[in-house]
Amino acid sequence: MTAFDTSTASDTLPVTQRTQIKRQPQRGNYDRALIHQILDEALICYVGFVVDAQPFVIPTAYGRVGDQLYIHGSPASRMLRTLKEQVAVCVTVTLLDGLVLARSAFHHSMNYRSVVVFGNATVVDDPTEKLMALQAFTEHVMPDRWAAVRPPTPQELAGTLVLALPLQEASAKVRTGPPKDDADDYALPVWAGELPLRLTPLSPIPDPQLPSSIEVPTHVQHYGRPSIGVAK
Amino acid sequence: MTAFDTSTASDTLPVTQRTQIKRQPQRGNYDRALIHQILDEALICYVGFVVDAQPFVIPTAYGRVGDQLYIHGSPASRMLRTLKEQVAVCVTVTLLDGLVLARSAFHHSMNYRSVVVFGNATVVDDPTEKLMALQAFTEHVMPDRWAAVRPPTPQELAGTLVLALPLQEASAKVRTGPPKDDADDYALPVWAGELPLRLTPLSPIPDPQLPSSIEVPTHVQHYGRPSIGVAK
Repeated sequence: MTAFDTSTASDTLPVTQRTQIKRQPQRGNYDRALIHQILDEALICYVGFVVDAQPFVIPTAYGRVGDQLYIHGSPASRMLRTLKEQVAVCVTVTLLDGLVLARSAFHHSMNYRSVVVFGNATVVDDPTEKLMALQAFTEHVMPDRWAAVRPPTPQELAGTLVLALPLQEASAKVRTGPPKDDADDYALPVWAGELPLRLTPLSPIPDPQLPSSIEVPTHVQHYGRPSIGVAK
Repeated sequence: MTAFDTSTASDTLPVTQRTQIKRQPQRGNYDRALIHQILDEALICYVGFVVDAQPFVIPTAYGRVGDQLYIHGSPASRMLRTLKEQVAVCVTVTLLDGLVLARSAFHHSMNYRSVVVFGNATVVDDPTEKLMALQAFTEHVMPDRWAAVRPPTPQELAGTLVLALPLQEASAKVRTGPPKDDADDYALPVWAGELPLRLTPLSPIPDPQLPSSIEVPTHVQHYGRPSIGVAK
């Protein structure tokens, strides 16, 4: 992707004590490409960190370039002030692909793709990498948006704290397919199957201050998430 | 709702050191009804806990009855084994309502409704409350489903660990509306506004083993999340 993209194709991350999937291990996956795809499709990550033995879980936007996950915000934020001290962090994303409707209450489930990343974040000081991370945030949320908008000023860049978390210790967990009912329950007259769910856009709402002469651009009008690897 | 519903209407949760919204405090909200609505609309919560100073963030399903949030799973799960020791927990949910597209990269944002809950979970031993919690899980994901499926057997109940987290120390954070651009940027010829996003169902996929004589029930065919308080 860029000079900062240090990933190598089609390989697998090492399994560590923290990333080993213990519950439903058949759903675990350490494939680097799959982990990247899930991170690229999701829009919000949940950042877990500890302050005085108290866990905090904060939802935030992010971007990915190669083997780096970037998060950003105000230098005054408690989350970023904590994380930049290189404390242990856990970042989790989940794509909810559907509801799994079984014949018994007990076997109801969800189809999902999730990623959990462990590590320690570091501050991005290099201005080139910082600008690239900000571009990655914008393009992650909406491809083709970066080129259409005013880029950050030096003051805006200076007022944004960017942290990088290496994608070295991470796992994916995936469930797909129909419910798994108990043998005896298949005879019950209960509808069973999957109800797929998708995050879909509604009609764009123009800013009240937008001149009516400015038309909705293609990158907004035809917006959609990539949905890689999901049954359509 | 039931004998376990101890909530009182239209009041506000106390602000604590943990729940005080410091960044963008105008987005903070401690209204109990709003917190309940957000929890009822979201489908997955992110449970944060600490093991040996390492934070973990695990996505899971949940249910709410009154002022109690219930999570459940196998007694063998690391998350539940940890939480039942009444360690500090942080549970976070987010509803992503839309993308906020500004004229500058810097002012891009998201419209969202999130809830963060702090507390200590306890094991639900009372069989009546446990069954009610399991009903709440199913009805939270899909209203009217519980009555349509086989209820849990005593063995299934015994094999499920249910934990309750009181909704006493919690906050909501909400962003709505158009982007807020810098004054000079409003003259730029850039489309700006909101792109609303919704989690929407696709067509149900019958279990391959389902007899074709069993029709899709109304609670599946007309499924939708409540979307309380969101611009349609």
